[in-house]
Amino acid sequence: MKHTPKGTHAWLPYLPLSIPQGRSPFEIAQSELREGLKALGISKEAKIEVLGTGDEYELSDTGDLQVRGGPTGVLYGSYHLLSLLKRGAELPKGVVRPFYPLRMLNHWDNMDGEIERGYAGRSLFFRGNKVSFDRERIHRYARMLASVGINAVSPGNVNVKPPMDFLITGKYLPEIAKLADILRLYGIRLLLTVEFNLPLAAGLATADPLDENVMRFWRERAEETYRHIPDFIGFLVKADSEHRAGPFSYGRTHPEGANMLAQALKPYGGKLFWRCFVYNHNQDWRDPETDRPCAAFMHYAPLDGQFDDNVILQIKNGPLDFQVREPVSPLLFAMPGTKKALELQLAQEYTGQQVDLFYQAKQWQDVFSLLSADRVQFITAVSNLGDDPNWTGHDLAQANLFAYGRTAWYGRSDPEQYALEWAQLAFPCAGKEVADILLHSPDTYEKYVSPLGLGFMVNPNSHYGPSPDGYEYSSWGTYHRADREKVGVDRSARGTGLTEQYPGEIRAMYDDPAICPDKLLLFFHRLPYGHVMRDGRTLIQRIYDDHFEGAHEAKELALRWKTLKGLIPEDTFERVLTRFDRQEKNAREWCDVINSFFFRFSGIPDAKGRKIGPSKPAAHP
Amino acid sequence: MKHTPKGTHAWLPYLPLSIPQGRSPFEIAQSELREGLKALGISKEAKIEVLGTGDEYELSDTGDLQVRGGPTGVLYGSYHLLSLLKRGAELPKGVVRPFYPLRMLNHWDNMDGEIERGYAGRSLFFRGNKVSFDRERIHRYARMLASVGINAVSPGNVNVKPPMDFLITGKYLPEIAKLADILRLYGIRLLLTVEFNLPLAAGLATADPLDENVMRFWRERAEETYRHIPDFIGFLVKADSEHRAGPFSYGRTHPEGANMLAQALKPYGGKLFWRCFVYNHNQDWRDPETDRPCAAFMHYAPLDGQFDDNVILQIKNGPLDFQVREPVSPLLFAMPGTKKALELQLAQEYTGQQVDLFYQAKQWQDVFSLLSADRVQFITAVSNLGDDPNWTGHDLAQANLFAYGRTAWYGRSDPEQYALEWAQLAFPCAGKEVADILLHSPDTYEKYVSPLGLGFMVNPNSHYGPSPDGYEYSSWGTYHRADREKVGVDRSARGTGLTEQYPGEIRAMYDDPAICPDKLLLFFHRLPYGHVMRDGRTLIQRIYDDHFEGAHEAKELALRWKTLKGLIPEDTFERVLTRFDRQEKNAREWCDVINSFFFRFSGIPDAKGRKIGPSKPAAHP
Repeated sequence: MKHTPKGTHAWLPYLPLSIPQGRSPFEIAQSELREGLKALGISKEAKIEVLGTGDEYELSDTGDLQVRGGPTGVLYGSYHLLSLLKRGAELPKGVVRPFYPLRMLNHWDNMDGEIERGYAGRSLFFRGNKVSFDRERIHRYARMLASVGINAVSPGNVNVKPPMDFLITGKYLPEIAKLADILRLYGIRLLLTVEFNLPLAAGLATADPLDENVMRFWRERAEETYRHIPDFIGFLVKADSEHRAGPFSYGRTHPEGANMLAQALKPYGGKLFWRCFVYNHNQDWRDPETDRPCAAFMHYAPLDGQFDDNVILQIKNGPLDFQVREPVSPLLFAMPGTKKALELQLAQEYTGQQVDLFYQAKQWQDVFSLLSADRVQFITAVSNLGDDPNWTGHDLAQANLFAYGRTAWYGRSDPEQYALEWAQLAFPCAGKEVADILLHSPDTYEKYVSPLGLGFMVNPNSHYGPSPDGYEYSSWGTYHRADREKVGVDRSARGTGLTEQYPGEIRAMYDDPAICPDKLLLFFHRLPYGHVMRDGRTLIQRIYDDHFEGAHEAKELALRWKTLKGLIPEDTFERVLTRFDRQEKNAREWCDVINSFFFRFSGIPDAKGRKIGPSKPAAHP
Repeated sequence: MKHTPKGTHAWLPYLPLSIPQGRSPFEIAQSELREGLKALGISKEAKIEVLGTGDEYELSDTGDLQVRGGPTGVLYGSYHLLSLLKRGAELPKGVVRPFYPLRMLNHWDNMDGEIERGYAGRSLFFRGNKVSFDRERIHRYARMLASVGINAVSPGNVNVKPPMDFLITGKYLPEIAKLADILRLYGIRLLLTVEFNLPLAAGLATADPLDENVMRFWRERAEETYRHIPDFIGFLVKADSEHRAGPFSYGRTHPEGANMLAQALKPYGGKLFWRCFVYNHNQDWRDPETDRPCAAFMHYAPLDGQFDDNVILQIKNGPLDFQVREPVSPLLFAMPGTKKALELQLAQEYTGQQVDLFYQAKQWQDVFSLLSADRVQFITAVSNLGDDPNWTGHDLAQANLFAYGRTAWYGRSDPEQYALEWAQLAFPCAGKEVADILLHSPDTYEKYVSPLGLGFMVNPNSHYGPSPDGYEYSSWGTYHRADREKVGVDRSARGTGLTEQYPGEIRAMYDDPAICPDKLLLFFHRLPYGHVMRDGRTLIQRIYDDHFEGAHEAKELALRWKTLKGLIPEDTFERVLTRFDRQEKNAREWCDVINSFFFRFSGIPDAKGRKIGPSKPAAHP
């Protein structure tokens, strides 16, 4: 039942591990700035002035340092100021304000302390089916989040498992309120995940959203939650998804279900976040008509305008499920009359599980390069944190949290800039080199894992390691349909029609294999192995080349890290080195399995004569 | 921590559920015979007379019924007599004696109550890391075993998990002795599984078998075990196998390790059973030279004559691992100067997990048709029992335990006879029909699962349901190497050489694809899909045909069961019907996945035009 008490400084090496004193974000800002300047050896005066109401701030250095801004703005401004001073960078001119009003982090923690898709230890919030946290650690956690502007947290798993469903009752709210009390000092507010069927568990005869008793039940839950946590943001719901109950269980629509919950929150200014991860998870793999990536758009797009104004649809970045490479979700372009939140995943479920390095900001850049940031009103990300001393298991995975904070603040992804900032803060002696390692990592990982946009070639359940047919004959709707001639699913207008869910230009690009981006080619198209790509290589040769290159680059990454010995704190250096060694082995395994798999189907040897898996049966000696 | 208190009568419906009174097998026999005759409505006198020393008995009906035999023989004779009377069958002439002196059952129970590869509930012997059993249930269990002549039981898993390793210490022996006290009444003696590294766990510096302290340690363990259980049989060991420690851990040979343990048991007449399930479980799938089925023979055959005379090598029926179809293990023919035990598996790990019906005696018949029963001196089987009220989850799976008892007694498998006996005892109104269902079941299962001797096309870990590539890129050494041209591993003299481990005639048969039994064709040979088989069909067509037939037959089985409504006790009928329904779905899934898998590789359509999986990508409507 014990917590790992300490967390490291993360990217805040200039702040003391002891917790700051203060009873408001303003006082915390004063404390942090004072201690930070001391540690940086800067003897200037620093003045903090609260003006206005929000997260915005203005920094200036006119002999004295000045941070002016809203009540939380001064905290963000102070952290920003310190990071700029630490890096010797220039202060921004004018008022700085965040693009998204809520910059959220969704933990997937269970009350037994386990974390679903967690790769960095156990929960920071729960143990033994109780709310349980180390106060000091929560202070350090909140400081880390506030330092990059994250201002909203949901601690519990969207797959709500008992007794988490009763978190919004008097049994647990007093403890949750204590958590909220700490977070509030850092400008962070709480969301809580709720179970749609809670009324049933609580003894009601139904959880039908149109039932009067059910409505009253939820109004009471909202009332009690706000009584304990006055600045509570609202509920987060996963309904009618992957075995979870929802409006469908009662013959109701999603607007009927979501609006009912939203109306319970409305009197308190509360919001309802409603996840759109809805698809048939009991699909028959024999059925070639049903195509999972089409599901969310098909279900939700026709419902535009039917959701109340405090309902926010929370939509994953891609139409499938956080794969290494996916197109942007078409639903993000749709529903102009509905509020939407973009959901990213920091937890590296499909991107190396915090053993293999995968710097995600480049992936997000792909999203924002097509999707104007104002298409969504909110942003959230699934947490990659746990109670490991370094927070993220892989020390370098901290960069993803950092970059997410920046992305959520600015409403755009600038991978080079964020990587450099993080690396310079975390490893002042090796900032540029570490940033460069980060920036190369996603392309390397993608090369040795995902063949041109094919996803889910992973071991079932764990989602780690190669298993090309792992989900091929399952009910999860994730198929590559590889055979001896072709591979991929035709999702064009001639196939399942996914491309038709996109707006004009994007649709045209995805629909035509001649202009579809290479790395999404097999996501959208079913092609023969001999298909000649724009660069003249065949499809199969490109798969081989990518995988050999990826495995080689993984080795290079490890070698590059080794050159940093002495420039990185010894324990961090060794910890990361161990992960790179594992990654090198993983990469080799991925390369050989994927290439063997396609060689067995295609029978086409590598044009460069490299050995692919066991190409011959044994000769008896 | 509670046990399910009751077990059903199994195939002994004429005995009361209340436990018999008696302080010896002789007195138990008297009680059982008295109660049994009463329930059968037979008013003849029955006389039991103890003569001689062993398990043998003689039955006669000269007006009075007579059972004459050894102290345990009279118990076996009494059960046999009752079963014959119940079935209206003739009494055997002359003295009946068992072929094997020890007819063993190996449970794979863990001390937390879970059963490894258990499909019928939880352990009968352990709960909450304690020895824990329901006395009445153990009486019924022992009676059931004794009624088919089983006389030795090892309750604990061969994968010994803490605290099971300390079972042979004073902490647990008093409780184990109480278990032995009950079993002894039914002629059943105990074996215990031991952990080779126990000396380390107990605080010694090493578990090296040649270390004096280690030898003394094991002598003390043997002494203490025999002090508590004077008729203890000995130890059962899984060493140097699948992550377990063994002599190799200390640079010693298996004779050195096994003989050391055997010598500790020797003063008490104890035996050491040493499993030969030794292979490289960290194999590189790219390596085409290493062939797991070759491993046991390669390791042990050269060691003939080096084991002490109270060491018994325990060898699985096949060289791989309890697959649906395997050749007999070549090691069973080797090592004339070494004692051997044949190990079967009643737990249906790879044969339907007691959801799908698989009557195993036909599989054993294949063993005994090639292997003269006297090649081995002992026989054992992995238990299919748990604390489910019906003992085996699937009621009809009881037939496997019954048939195993008979097989172990007679030293031969007579599937028809044993099926009929069991079915007539368990379901007097539908004996022949149920026996016929049993007898068809293994062929049906094999057809929809295993393509001509290919194994391990199952989901990893669970070993249930189809996953043709589930183990293909793993470290477990179980590969089919399917590609677009061929499938199978060449294990002939031209390949990995497994066939050369067999004696002359068998070798010739397995080595030549022209005379190799069809159902082992792909176990021993790598062949193109167009290979023409003896019946004129191509290999691929045979795979398709088998799978379609198997799925169809599974449906037929369920239909046949439905015709028995009214002839089978209602609750049993419904329980079994549910399993047949599940089997029908499983069979369909197996059929479609396996056929699709091979269609995708071969591109050869079914000659009969049947639909194979999703043969075309979707057309957009």
